[in-house]
Amino acid sequence: MRHHIYTDATLATLSEARGWGMVADGAIAIDGDRIVYAGAANSIPGQHADFEKTSLGGRLITPGLFDCHTHLVYAGSRAREFELRLEGASYEDIARAGGGIFSTVQATRSASEEDLLAGALARLDRLLAEGVCTVEIKSGYGLDRETELRMLRVAARLAEMRPVRISKTFLGAHAIPEDMDADQYLDGICLPTLREAAAENLVDMVDGFCENIAFSPAQIRKVFDVAVELGLPVKLHAEQLSDQGGAALAAEYGALSAEHLEFVSEDGIAAMAGAGTVAVILPGAFYFLGETRKPPIEDFRKAGVPMAIATDSNPGSSPMTSLLLAMNMGATLFGLTPEECLRGGTVNAARALGLRDIGRLASGQIADLAIWDVTDPAELTYRMGDTLLHKRIFGGAEC
Amino acid sequence: MRHHIYTDATLATLSEARGWGMVADGAIAIDGDRIVYAGAANSIPGQHADFEKTSLGGRLITPGLFDCHTHLVYAGSRAREFELRLEGASYEDIARAGGGIFSTVQATRSASEEDLLAGALARLDRLLAEGVCTVEIKSGYGLDRETELRMLRVAARLAEMRPVRISKTFLGAHAIPEDMDADQYLDGICLPTLREAAAENLVDMVDGFCENIAFSPAQIRKVFDVAVELGLPVKLHAEQLSDQGGAALAAEYGALSAEHLEFVSEDGIAAMAGAGTVAVILPGAFYFLGETRKPPIEDFRKAGVPMAIATDSNPGSSPMTSLLLAMNMGATLFGLTPEECLRGGTVNAARALGLRDIGRLASGQIADLAIWDVTDPAELTYRMGDTLLHKRIFGGAEC
Ligand SMILES: [Zn+2]
Ligand SMILES: [Zn+2]
Repeated sequence: MRHHIYTDATLATLSEARGWGMVADGAIAIDGDRIVYAGAANSIPGQHADFEKTSLGGRLITPGLFDCHTHLVYAGSRAREFELRLEGASYEDIARAGGGIFSTVQATRSASEEDLLAGALARLDRLLAEGVCTVEIKSGYGLDRETELRMLRVAARLAEMRPVRISKTFLGAHAIPEDMDADQYLDGICLPTLREAAAENLVDMVDGFCENIAFSPAQIRKVFDVAVELGLPVKLHAEQLSDQGGAALAAEYGALSAEHLEFVSEDGIAAMAGAGTVAVILPGAFYFLGETRKPPIEDFRKAGVPMAIATDSNPGSSPMTSLLLAMNMGATLFGLTPEECLRGGTVNAARALGLRDIGRLASGQIADLAIWDVTDPAELTYRMGDTLLHKRIFGGAEC
Repeated sequence: MRHHIYTDATLATLSEARGWGMVADGAIAIDGDRIVYAGAANSIPGQHADFEKTSLGGRLITPGLFDCHTHLVYAGSRAREFELRLEGASYEDIARAGGGIFSTVQATRSASEEDLLAGALARLDRLLAEGVCTVEIKSGYGLDRETELRMLRVAARLAEMRPVRISKTFLGAHAIPEDMDADQYLDGICLPTLREAAAENLVDMVDGFCENIAFSPAQIRKVFDVAVELGLPVKLHAEQLSDQGGAALAAEYGALSAEHLEFVSEDGIAAMAGAGTVAVILPGAFYFLGETRKPPIEDFRKAGVPMAIATDSNPGSSPMTSLLLAMNMGATLFGLTPEECLRGGTVNAARALGLRDIGRLASGQIADLAIWDVTDPAELTYRMGDTLLHKRIFGGAEC
């Protein structure tokens, strides 16, 4: 068991519901994988007096970051499609050139588990380099039994290869395979695969894409009913391109989170507030797709809906591997404050993953920390293209 | 003298006026600090047969990147100002809280040469980590003799501390000090300091900020007249917030480049085309300030005005240290193609700095190269938050 005190540190504890929770001359004591003290350096309890000490020269400590919405496991690149679009190609041209989500499905189906792992590891390492300690990863580029399971196995293996927590989300209801209709796919492939993946302990949460180009609320309901039966929490890609009532549906099922939400209605917001469903804000896709309708941040604030921020890392709509950049976009494009952005990448992101004993600097929390080469936590959101990271602490251990 | 061949490489040579100039199974031969061959691997001239060889496993080589517009040397942070703005503070509130450009001027005046150097080095290292080999750096946060000279000395010292080319730009005409009027400042401080800096060999180019909140065209003319007298090329921050006729003025003086240009007129574009003045596109400031008026990219294309892209790295309007992110923003926000973005960070950026024997992969060019962990050059613009760099070659030597 490691016993350690980080001292001469500036803390942004986020320990209360509001405010940074700054401690100017702070210290954190770690016993094993838990924080046992976070507060003023001159008030460290006597029983930690013999812990080994590291002085941080005033550096900022925050909770280790969370990327709570990613599609990190996939094969192929959509750079050529991006180029075609900028050269003026139409949607049809791109489809004919083999672009779109089905190009990713095709490449992912064809990729070996080792190839998928190598690609995901490279992207994961970028996230870890800026202080991320927990990453949610969704399936959904297989749309067949073997590939959905393979994606989830790869996600699980990442946690064996790097010091990182991985939350695995089954997103079989991501798109409708080109050669079948939605219900045929759900009943024949998606839901049986969900049961099998859950039996293999490969699923922490169940997600879907509720949109007129994907699954209807009634179809999502079928998916959620199976999740409930399996005892798995749900979340939902909702109201990204139109208002389908997905947020209210998610809330009805006590969803951990609803994601995107550019077109969410007042009723949807009220339902989320009532259910404690987190709004996961994904500015990378908004930016990359050149969207104009922004999620109703002020309404979330007024309703008391907690907001998280994530990269949505994926090849089609957000080829992004920087959570700090997503936080900057949250502020610059959507007007979130730097404090909301840091909460969005820590305590609220943890909640979007159903995790309660992690994401703040407080006694009893898991000791995932990020130590930064700055003292002001607003810097993390303000800078663009810098990692700013001094060191990560994962489960109490230095990485 | 180093004699080396990089083989089994994919080249994006940019050697012609249009197109990537791709070579699929390519090689580059380097003799000392120059490229002596760039082309198909099976056509390497016999006289290079005994050069040492490195196989790159198919990796992409591009010219080393250029960040041709930065304000990299400064002290202080504006993160708190960013936070205040997002918390709803007015411009007056921020000014009262000590924000705005004069907070950077104050901090920079107070900083020692060593402190300025340390801050700039940290930012420079971020740029180098993604393949940048040449960085332009402007003075302009001193607005007094000592600090303007100190900023330029720091810029010069960076090139001694890292394998990088630094272009030093005198930007005394960046803002009007709070305690004097513009002409008083130009005649009494700015222009005498320019003469002194040039005499100390600290100036490669002369820049100004032509805007109704800064200097008028008549005042910029005074600055340019001294530059001409000193034999120094000019460039200009023009038409960022309004149309002042700055682009035409710059073109009249044969300026290497005009920068920002969101509000440039047809006449300004025509004048730039006639003078061969490069349009330096700075999407970071547009993004960070939440501007809506975009530079007229299609008009630049039609007029044959070459376009460069840069970070504009500065604490007030673009706290960005990623040229790849600036390239992504050029594509995503302004519709530049990935090829235009790469030209914007290489051959056209070189031209904006008055450099002609660098920025392409061709025999006779200086051997500044970036070797990437991808094969498709569109990836460099498509990804967000990844460095993708395998290795930099600077002046023929591996970094
Ligand atoms: Zn998603
Ligand atoms: Zn500038």
